[in-house]
Amino acid sequence: MPEISKNHSVEILSIGSEILLGNILNTNAKWLAEELAKIGLQHFRQSVIGDNFKRLKSIILEASERNSILITTGGLGPTPDDLTTETISCAFNTPLIKSNEVAQDIQNKLRLSDHKSLSINNKQALYPKGAEIIPNSTGTAPGIIWSPKPGFTIITFPGVPSEMKQMWTDVALPWLKKNTGLQETIKSKILKFTGISESSLAEKVSDLLHNSNPTISPYAELGEVKLRITAQANNVQQANKLISPIECELIKRGGVNYFGSNNETLPSVVIQLLKDLGQTVSVAESCTGGSLGAAFTAIPGSSEVFLGGIIAYNNLIKQKLLEISPPILEEYGAVSSNVVKAMAEAVRKKFNSDWGLAISGIAGPTGASKNKPIGLVQFGISGKNILESSQENFSPQRGRRAIQELSVMRSLDILRLFLLRES
Amino acid sequence: MPEISKNHSVEILSIGSEILLGNILNTNAKWLAEELAKIGLQHFRQSVIGDNFKRLKSIILEASERNSILITTGGLGPTPDDLTTETISCAFNTPLIKSNEVAQDIQNKLRLSDHKSLSINNKQALYPKGAEIIPNSTGTAPGIIWSPKPGFTIITFPGVPSEMKQMWTDVALPWLKKNTGLQETIKSKILKFTGISESSLAEKVSDLLHNSNPTISPYAELGEVKLRITAQANNVQQANKLISPIECELIKRGGVNYFGSNNETLPSVVIQLLKDLGQTVSVAESCTGGSLGAAFTAIPGSSEVFLGGIIAYNNLIKQKLLEISPPILEEYGAVSSNVVKAMAEAVRKKFNSDWGLAISGIAGPTGASKNKPIGLVQFGISGKNILESSQENFSPQRGRRAIQELSVMRSLDILRLFLLRES
Repeated sequence: MPEISKNHSVEILSIGSEILLGNILNTNAKWLAEELAKIGLQHFRQSVIGDNFKRLKSIILEASERNSILITTGGLGPTPDDLTTETISCAFNTPLIKSNEVAQDIQNKLRLSDHKSLSINNKQALYPKGAEIIPNSTGTAPGIIWSPKPGFTIITFPGVPSEMKQMWTDVALPWLKKNTGLQETIKSKILKFTGISESSLAEKVSDLLHNSNPTISPYAELGEVKLRITAQANNVQQANKLISPIECELIKRGGVNYFGSNNETLPSVVIQLLKDLGQTVSVAESCTGGSLGAAFTAIPGSSEVFLGGIIAYNNLIKQKLLEISPPILEEYGAVSSNVVKAMAEAVRKKFNSDWGLAISGIAGPTGASKNKPIGLVQFGISGKNILESSQENFSPQRGRRAIQELSVMRSLDILRLFLLRES
Repeated sequence: MPEISKNHSVEILSIGSEILLGNILNTNAKWLAEELAKIGLQHFRQSVIGDNFKRLKSIILEASERNSILITTGGLGPTPDDLTTETISCAFNTPLIKSNEVAQDIQNKLRLSDHKSLSINNKQALYPKGAEIIPNSTGTAPGIIWSPKPGFTIITFPGVPSEMKQMWTDVALPWLKKNTGLQETIKSKILKFTGISESSLAEKVSDLLHNSNPTISPYAELGEVKLRITAQANNVQQANKLISPIECELIKRGGVNYFGSNNETLPSVVIQLLKDLGQTVSVAESCTGGSLGAAFTAIPGSSEVFLGGIIAYNNLIKQKLLEISPPILEEYGAVSSNVVKAMAEAVRKKFNSDWGLAISGIAGPTGASKNKPIGLVQFGISGKNILESSQENFSPQRGRRAIQELSVMRSLDILRLFLLRES
């Protein structure tokens, strides 16, 4: 039976040379960190280590001195570089034994898809004597919960995010809740702002940044600034009571730059505003090539308000599908106030939607001219009694993808501000 | 003058509660890891630590025992929770001094944008006595290169990715190349495959997975499997000589599932094939809502071959803009072979492109019926003498975003396979 110390603190260890060498992003550590914060389990360190027996063993032993729970992801696969299970047993001088149940489960799964891989998957049925197995319902790699010494528990997951998440939710999370007997809750709420810099927002709330409970930390991401409010209390209700007045004050100071909290995003907020008003939107995209449509469509339920759009990446298409007259295109150029207004108006009429949004700009690295540098983007919006345009000069150093993403956020925010007026 | 030991090994430390708590992804560590691999500087560990003086000091001292170079990102901002510089100087009992040059630079930058922030930014001009300053050309937070004790150098960067990258390239990279006098090169090449599982690919190359130089490691990402070949040698030429024959063998075994290497992606490979053939493509998207267009448009130079598309998220739009006849939509439903073929054909003709691609499916979480479960996606392709469709049943557990992304990859791969036949 795994044991846990009263002063539990967690460490996350991501195992895999593909993460250490920067071939893939460590999304698992981010996800687990958020899950730990949700249940108020304190965690102070994350590490990444490659598929190397000696270094893996050493960091596992270090962690066992430092913290009471070590959560690992990765290294449970069928290939020779997957070393997690054998390294853990070796670190604590415990023999590996074979689970016939797991072996049978793997056999059944592989028969279904590709039974040639059978031999290579065999080692996935091994686990250290005394460990509990965390079944993997979708993949072949089970995890374990194991206390190799008093006051220290190790929980392993495969590196495939969907498998790890399922196993966390089904087995590890209930186990942690039961065995840690958490007395204190840490609760965070994140407020999101756009159209303002981190420094300017921090200045507006500077008197609150030294608060101790709740604490307030600003941080910037592409196109948005966040304020994280974190409260410690004996229960969720008390934590909410601490957060609530500060939250109101921060939202008040943020003004229209505040757009949402926690999991809300600009697209989700705009979709909700459209739903509330019973209105619809369509898009005409040039330099963003479908990214604005994709941002809407990523949100479940967007089909109620997002009708579709036209990706007019090419000037001929702008003429043909959006009926922008060649003289306007010639006189002002595709990246101009007149053209984005015409695009927004045309797509709104074609799709018979309440709103039409248009984006045309120079995302680079080519296509710039003397008067139209890389990063210049024009935005058009058309509504029943509205036809307006605005422009942004994003820094060319940001690069093509960032300019496209910032353009999508800006366009969403333009619609958001108009919708707020109507709400 | 910073010093460096001969047996140099690097550790990356990402500082910031926003990473530790999982509010943002650690993209900086990934990027730095790739940069280190490129120049063959060995690095064995990455860590994440919050904005906490005590824990930050402790991990800095640990790292100074373990490795010869510590690279940090984050904690150089103007707000009170930014502690990196003062913690480092304290850890090595060194006073902070003020750089008038940096102070002046910050003042100039803030006057340009928002001079209210002046006072809060003042601490960014402080640095430990003896350190070299890494200027920050776009932001206000400079970094440092400092050897607080023999054989150990610490290099700090701000957390904002664009600033960190610029400072790395301009100052840190030349410094490292000059001061480490690298004798050995580590070179990696990544081969990418799609339409095959990690187990199946590993089985096909299983005899090569125990190779010691170069090593071969498989790993899976959404919709693709990668094989990383890593060689150690005295110089790049020798490393390439080791990699080349193995690379040929792996590509041969991968067959049509192999699509590219290193920075090549499915969209970039498809765009290159289209350029080589002088052909163009347009898209008609339903459940992916613009993501396929966005995937093309993310690639610089895509405008030569990608003309645009129609986002027909709504059935009425499918009828109106793609002229899909209502009886076909009614009889077969929007997610059907007949409808995606008609969509692909219609968009190809409307845009007068060589190829038309269409996607229609059920991304969930709603919209499923008995015969059409979540994850069912139909793909259409239309070319001069080609009009075909195929379908995939992606696992509903993957969730909406993954189903959309897998659909984009599948559609690109369908076109890739047709283009390969013509090449």
